[in-house]
Amino acid sequence: MAEVAVLGYGTVGSGVVEVIENNRDVISKRCEGLHVKYILDLRDFPGDPYEDRVVHDFDSIINDPEVKIVCETMGGATFAYNYTKACLEAGKSVCTSNKELVEKYGAELSRIAAGHSCSYLFEASVGGGIPLIRTINEALTAEKIERIYGILNGTTNYILYRMETAGLDFKAALCEAQEFGYAEKDPTADIEGHDPCRKIAILASLVTGKKVDYTKILMEGIKDLSIKDIEYAKAAGMCIKLIAMSEFKNGGCYCMVSPRLIAASNPLSIVKDVFNAVLIHSDMLDDSMYYGRGAGKLATASAVVGDAVECANNIGKTVFCGWSEEEAQLADIDDLEQSYFVRVKDEAAGAFKAAVKTKDCVLEGIAEGEKGYFTESMTEGGFKKAIADLDGVIGYIRM
Amino acid sequence: MAEVAVLGYGTVGSGVVEVIENNRDVISKRCEGLHVKYILDLRDFPGDPYEDRVVHDFDSIINDPEVKIVCETMGGATFAYNYTKACLEAGKSVCTSNKELVEKYGAELSRIAAGHSCSYLFEASVGGGIPLIRTINEALTAEKIERIYGILNGTTNYILYRMETAGLDFKAALCEAQEFGYAEKDPTADIEGHDPCRKIAILASLVTGKKVDYTKILMEGIKDLSIKDIEYAKAAGMCIKLIAMSEFKNGGCYCMVSPRLIAASNPLSIVKDVFNAVLIHSDMLDDSMYYGRGAGKLATASAVVGDAVECANNIGKTVFCGWSEEEAQLADIDDLEQSYFVRVKDEAAGAFKAAVKTKDCVLEGIAEGEKGYFTESMTEGGFKKAIADLDGVIGYIRM
Repeated sequence: MAEVAVLGYGTVGSGVVEVIENNRDVISKRCEGLHVKYILDLRDFPGDPYEDRVVHDFDSIINDPEVKIVCETMGGATFAYNYTKACLEAGKSVCTSNKELVEKYGAELSRIAAGHSCSYLFEASVGGGIPLIRTINEALTAEKIERIYGILNGTTNYILYRMETAGLDFKAALCEAQEFGYAEKDPTADIEGHDPCRKIAILASLVTGKKVDYTKILMEGIKDLSIKDIEYAKAAGMCIKLIAMSEFKNGGCYCMVSPRLIAASNPLSIVKDVFNAVLIHSDMLDDSMYYGRGAGKLATASAVVGDAVECANNIGKTVFCGWSEEEAQLADIDDLEQSYFVRVKDEAAGAFKAAVKTKDCVLEGIAEGEKGYFTESMTEGGFKKAIADLDGVIGYIRM
Repeated sequence: MAEVAVLGYGTVGSGVVEVIENNRDVISKRCEGLHVKYILDLRDFPGDPYEDRVVHDFDSIINDPEVKIVCETMGGATFAYNYTKACLEAGKSVCTSNKELVEKYGAELSRIAAGHSCSYLFEASVGGGIPLIRTINEALTAEKIERIYGILNGTTNYILYRMETAGLDFKAALCEAQEFGYAEKDPTADIEGHDPCRKIAILASLVTGKKVDYTKILMEGIKDLSIKDIEYAKAAGMCIKLIAMSEFKNGGCYCMVSPRLIAASNPLSIVKDVFNAVLIHSDMLDDSMYYGRGAGKLATASAVVGDAVECANNIGKTVFCGWSEEEAQLADIDDLEQSYFVRVKDEAAGAFKAAVKTKDCVLEGIAEGEKGYFTESMTEGGFKKAIADLDGVIGYIRM
């Protein structure tokens, strides 16, 4: 039986305890078994079935040689960083759902783990319960990964889905998401794209083996999307998804988070509600897709516990999951080729079509005084330059 | 550099050599590197870039202590069994795409591997390049898996897809699949369901930890499906897929392979062409789906090589993947509850509706003199008993 400490008894932390207790049978078939010895939290939890395990000081955990595995479910990058580092330096493996910490300090923490014969695992930090990190790190090991392309944020997917299916505008859909607890009171990290941006940075770091800095990724959220945009997408037989993508080519790594038009034939088009899904394109396997709950207490906790099982099976050893501290040079996103859907005022149509190569298909009748055009494939830089001086471009969505 | 022998230089075997050679860079980042030392085949391959590695006798492989990893891509269960056993007994890990062998002897071979500090891995035997086995075995380790439900045969999915989208009848779609090389000259194993049946037996064995005998699984193929069935499905806004399923409940394991009606809202409905996809329902994560190329030279070979990478990282140790030799008791499929779509001749409608509880929705006008009914949920045994003595039931499809 491996003794486990859980840092932070919030949503995910209490989920971790629940998964370990409720699925004791299956877990003990897959490792020597897990037992929660400590739960670290500032608060008391009178009446909680595990209140006797709650401790308030970190020292009792770090000084207990019986504790071999620590589940860090505190969030944030300050205390969590100090505690994680201390645990790894003491040879205790750490499993986490903390994407902020992984994105910022993953390189350093995985190096420390390797130096102390323990592991730093973070399956839950991207895609909740969907085994994305393990797939990249342990399954597709004979593959050159060429593109990762997916829906990595459930909140925004829910909002877009409700705009599409219920005709709600952005604000109404956001309110609904908040009512259901899918969106935070301060929804910035989701709707502006910080959350999926951190996640794609983690996946791109894994693929390149170098640290991808999320603050350098072009990031556009969904808050400027209108119901008219959704109607255009529908008229084209498509839908709009917030896509986090990373493309690896010519030695470079292009990363971007932005709304995109997705064709009905694309498997990502069926990703409804708060679900997440990621398409990985690799050289031998071609497209593969991984779909499931990208958030939620139990789905996320289950991934943390899955990592804990792997740590329990590798006590005294390192399961390496990480990248070097060297920063990955992101390729210039202006060089990335893609096509665009562009809404243009009727009076600007001539100037627009003179500046940008468009396809024959035109969408009209969705909103008065404008039409929607699909461009040929062109570079991001070329497109932006072409429309820079044009009046009458209402907006655009990448494809 | 780990020395590798490839047994059988057919489609998958030559794919294995190609993946190891072409992706040498990525592979050597993930392990000490792989090098193909021998290719065993009865034939010579003059002019082949690897003709110098081809050997005709197994002894040169089994007696070479440098060979630590053997990729068995021969197929069949006779020679492949003898060779695999000999390799494992000599402490050489074996990676395979041979589902027949895994289904039949997986328990014994994984036990032998564990007894000789080597591994028997078979990711490629189910779902080609989609990491299904690794997901069950290494990722969802904190989950009680309750149901596996998916499309595990690309040939039949292609045929059904072409019947649906091009209006071809079964024979014409099969011919087309044969022309494109998607179906064998003798297509029995695919169209009668043996192939997906073996695969679901392997997955169910992994979940239960006991040997599931595929010959005891209720298996229905697609060869009796008509274009009328497809038209009914379309009229209901659904599609027909050949589904291999295994449900784990009340300590029992229900397994079945049969065509099923799939709603458009089900993520499996988007699985087109020769793609495969599997939905896994588990207690904490809920539904997750894994989608990709379930067959094909490079996709399959990539999974074999991915296993070889894992073996290279665990020389002298066992990565356990398998189940006990004890046979799993399959639950009586007659007790499984599901609903049915039933085509009934008009003159038998009264008797049918008296015998079987149906829903209000009725499909008519698809074929003369008949209607299509949807039943309430009932047991397989109850349904079969209810229609046993009825004349005028044209056919049914499970839902």
